[in-house]
Amino acid sequence: MARKGEDKEFVKELTSKSEDFSEWYVDVVRKTDMADYTAIKGCMVIKPYGYALWENIRDALDKRIKATGHKNAYFPLFVPESLLKLEAEHVEGFAPEVAWVTQGGTEPLEERLAIRPTSEAIICSIYAKWVQSYRDLPILINQWANVVRWEKVTRLFLRTTEFLWQEGHTCHRTYEEAQEETLKMLGVYREFAETELAMPVIYGEKTESEKFAGAQKTYAIEALMGDGRALQAGTSHNLGQHFARVFNIKFLDEDQQEKYVWQTSWGASTRLIGGVVMMHGDDNGLVLPPRIAPVQVVFVPIYFSDSMDTVVQKVRELGEKLSEFRVELDLRETQTAGWKFNEWEMKGVPLRVEVGPKDIKKEQVVIVRRDTREKLFVPEGRLVETVRDLLSDIQKAMFQKALRFREENTVRTDDYGEFRTIMETRRGFVKSGWCGDAGCEARVKEETKATIRCIPLDGCDEEKGRCLACGRPAQCTVYLARAY
Amino acid sequence: MARKGEDKEFVKELTSKSEDFSEWYVDVVRKTDMADYTAIKGCMVIKPYGYALWENIRDALDKRIKATGHKNAYFPLFVPESLLKLEAEHVEGFAPEVAWVTQGGTEPLEERLAIRPTSEAIICSIYAKWVQSYRDLPILINQWANVVRWEKVTRLFLRTTEFLWQEGHTCHRTYEEAQEETLKMLGVYREFAETELAMPVIYGEKTESEKFAGAQKTYAIEALMGDGRALQAGTSHNLGQHFARVFNIKFLDEDQQEKYVWQTSWGASTRLIGGVVMMHGDDNGLVLPPRIAPVQVVFVPIYFSDSMDTVVQKVRELGEKLSEFRVELDLRETQTAGWKFNEWEMKGVPLRVEVGPKDIKKEQVVIVRRDTREKLFVPEGRLVETVRDLLSDIQKAMFQKALRFREENTVRTDDYGEFRTIMETRRGFVKSGWCGDAGCEARVKEETKATIRCIPLDGCDEEKGRCLACGRPAQCTVYLARAY
Repeated sequence: MARKGEDKEFVKELTSKSEDFSEWYVDVVRKTDMADYTAIKGCMVIKPYGYALWENIRDALDKRIKATGHKNAYFPLFVPESLLKLEAEHVEGFAPEVAWVTQGGTEPLEERLAIRPTSEAIICSIYAKWVQSYRDLPILINQWANVVRWEKVTRLFLRTTEFLWQEGHTCHRTYEEAQEETLKMLGVYREFAETELAMPVIYGEKTESEKFAGAQKTYAIEALMGDGRALQAGTSHNLGQHFARVFNIKFLDEDQQEKYVWQTSWGASTRLIGGVVMMHGDDNGLVLPPRIAPVQVVFVPIYFSDSMDTVVQKVRELGEKLSEFRVELDLRETQTAGWKFNEWEMKGVPLRVEVGPKDIKKEQVVIVRRDTREKLFVPEGRLVETVRDLLSDIQKAMFQKALRFREENTVRTDDYGEFRTIMETRRGFVKSGWCGDAGCEARVKEETKATIRCIPLDGCDEEKGRCLACGRPAQCTVYLARAY
Repeated sequence: MARKGEDKEFVKELTSKSEDFSEWYVDVVRKTDMADYTAIKGCMVIKPYGYALWENIRDALDKRIKATGHKNAYFPLFVPESLLKLEAEHVEGFAPEVAWVTQGGTEPLEERLAIRPTSEAIICSIYAKWVQSYRDLPILINQWANVVRWEKVTRLFLRTTEFLWQEGHTCHRTYEEAQEETLKMLGVYREFAETELAMPVIYGEKTESEKFAGAQKTYAIEALMGDGRALQAGTSHNLGQHFARVFNIKFLDEDQQEKYVWQTSWGASTRLIGGVVMMHGDDNGLVLPPRIAPVQVVFVPIYFSDSMDTVVQKVRELGEKLSEFRVELDLRETQTAGWKFNEWEMKGVPLRVEVGPKDIKKEQVVIVRRDTREKLFVPEGRLVETVRDLLSDIQKAMFQKALRFREENTVRTDDYGEFRTIMETRRGFVKSGWCGDAGCEARVKEETKATIRCIPLDGCDEEKGRCLACGRPAQCTVYLARAY
C-alpha cells in the first residue's frame, strides 16, 4: 500500500507549474522519461516513452497525409552548398544554422555538404528531372526524416539541433491548385491537432517578416500554451515559383507551352510533443490525450501478501478484456501501490484501474481519471464499455478545457498600453488591428517580445479597428502573442 | 486493347537477367520507380513505390521487434570523434568511411562530429548514465534511423552512402543472457525473411575476419541471389563487454558487486529491398512477395469506347469488395490495357485482375498470377476467397522456388579445384571443411573472391571433412560464396 511519506517525496520532485513554468516543463519531460539531453550540444535522446508518443502522433498524421493523396518517399540527408545557395531568400534564412560536412572518409570534399535543415533545395533538384509534362503533375510527396539546425539556445522537443519531422513537397500546374493544396494541408494540421492532440489552434497567414525563407505565403496553426505563450505547431507554405525558377522545374503544358511548376511545402515536427506537454500538463506531470497516449489504461493491483495471487490473477484477467486499448499491467513487486499511482499520474496515463481484495469481493474496480482525478466505482461487467466511454470523454474534455483556457486568455484590444500590460503579465493571445506596416510590427516585437502569430483567414474582411502600434486605420485584424 | 508492337518495345527496355544480371538489377530498380541516383555521390532517392515497399518491410519487422519485448527510441545523428575512438576495433573498422561535420552554423566546431555509421558509440555513452543497478537491466531498445558510410563503390539499395535501417542495442546482466538475445534476434531475422520476404536464408556465425568491428561474435542470415552470389541480409552481434568497459557501463548487482553489462546489437536495412529484387525478379521485372507488395492486386479494365462506363463501374464495384487487400484500380485513359499489363508485371504486383465486357456477361473475371503467369477464370462470386487463397499460395510458392534454387545451387565439396570452378562459373553456396586458420580463409578470398559467409550453428558438430584450402582436417563446416 501507499506509504504516504514516500509519495509526497516523489511528487515534490516536480517544480510547480505556476512557480516556474520553464523549469516545470523540463522536469516533466525528463522525469517522465520522454527525453533527455546528451553530450552533443542541443541534441536530445528521445526515450521509449517519448518515442511511443511520437509513433502515435506520426501514425495519426501519416494516415491523414496519405488519405489526402500523398505518398511517402525518402530523399538524401545532404544538400550540396551550391544547391542550397540557389534560392537567395532560402539560403539567407537557413545558412546561419547549417551543419556542414567537409570530409568524407579520408578525403576532404570538393564541395561542402549541408545536412538538410529542410529539404526544398535537394528535393527541387530531383523534381526537376521528374517533371516533364503536365501529365506528371501534380507531384504529391511527403517525407518523414531527421533535420538539423544549429540552434544557439535549445529546449527539449521545442527547439533542438536535430529533430524529427515530416515535410510535404508538392508540384502543381497552376497557382490556384498550389494555393488550394497549401490551405488543404493547413486544414489537415488543424483537424489533426484538434482531434488527436486535443489541441485547439488558431490558424492563418504569416506576415512577410515571419514567413518561411523562400515562400510566397506561409500559413500556420498556433496553439496557446499553459503559460500564455503561443506555439507554432505546423506550417504550410505556398512556394509560388520561387524554387521552380531557380531549380528549373518546367513542364510542357497541354497548350504546348513550357511553364514552371507551382509548389508547396508543409511540415510538423517532434515539437508537437512539447506542445502537448505544455498545453495539458499540470503540477502532477503529464496529462496525455487518450488518442495518442502510449498507455491508455494502467492497472495497479493493491494487495497484502496473502491476497497477492488472487489480485494479480484478476488484474491479468481484466487486462485481457481491454485488448482493444493500450494497456499496461504494473505488476512490479518492488514498488508500493502509492508510488505507482504517482508515477503513472506523472506519466499522464488517462485512466488508472485499481484492483484490491475488497473490489474483487464486490465484483468492481476503481477507475481514476487523470484529467479530473475523479474516482469511479465500476462493476467488472461494465469495464470495457466504461473505459471506452471514459477515454472518449477525456479526449473531448481535454479539448474543451484547452479551448476555454484559450478563450479566457484571448483579448481584443487596439490599445497599445493595455497590450503591453497583458504581455508583461498574464500574456495570452491579443487580437488587434494592424496597419500592415512592417515597421509597426517590428516596434511591437522589440518593445514587448510579442509577434504577429497570424492574420486569421478572414482577418482582412471583418471589423478592423486601428493599428495597435501607430493608431492608423487597420488593414486587417491579427493575433499577437509571445511565442516559443 | 494492347497494341502488340508497343508492348514488346516496352518490355525490351529491361536488360535480360541472364545476359547481364548487374545491369538488369539497376534497370529493374530504376524503371519500376523504386529508387534512383542523385547528384550526391552514392546517395539515392527512394521513390514512392520503393518507399511503400520499405514501409511494409519496416512494419512487419517492427512488429516482431516489439513482440520480443523491445521498445523504440531515437538517439542523436552525431557521434563526437572522441566517443567513436574509444573502442579501438570499432573505430578502425568505421573511421575510413565516416562523413565528418566540422562546422556548425558560422562557427568551426571544437571537436569533429561523425555522422553515425552505426550508433554503438553514441548509444553506449548514453546507456552509461541510464544503467546503475541490476534492476535497470535488461535494456532492450531499438532505433529506426538513417546512417551514413562513405562508400567508394555504390549500388542502389545494396550499398549506398546513406541508408535506412533499424539497429537494436541491448544491455544484459550476464554473458548468457546477451548470447541468448543475440541468437533470439538472429532467429527473428530468419523467421521474418522467410515469412515476409519469401527469402530462405542460411544462418550462422561469422569468422573472426568477417565479424562486426568491436563485436565478440557476429551472426548473420545470408540469402542466395539469382546470380549465385550471397547477400548478408541481417546481422546480430554479441558485443561482450568490449563497449561496456570503454564506455563504463556498470551496474551494482544484487550481490553488491559493481559489474560491466553485457551487450548486443543487431541490424537490418534497406538493403533487404535489393535482396527481394535479386532473389525473386525475372526478365519481366520485379516479382514481389504478396505480404510486402505495395499493391497486391491491380485491376485493369478492358473496354472499347461503348463499354467503358459499364466496365469501369464493375471494376470499382469489385475493387471495393477487396478492401482487405492493397488494391489499385488502373483507370488511366491515356494507356492501353496491354501497356498496363506490362507495367504492373514489371512492378511485380502479385495478381492482375482483368475485367472486360465479355467477362461481365459471364459474371467472371480473369486473374493472372505474376509468379507463374498462370491465367485463371474466376466467377465474380468467388473473387474474394480466390484472391485470398492465391496471395497465400504465391507467397508460399515464391519461398519454395527460392529454396529450390538455393538447394540446386549449394554443393558440398572439400576439393579446392572443384570449388574454384564453381566460383568461376555458376557460383552459389559451397559447403566445405575449414581448418579454422585465417590464412586459409584469406587465400581462398584472394584467389576466388569467395568468403566464408558463415559457420552454421551446428557446423562444428557435424562431419567436417578436410579444409578446402590446405587439406588438413577441418575444425568445422562452413558456407562459402561470392557475396555482395
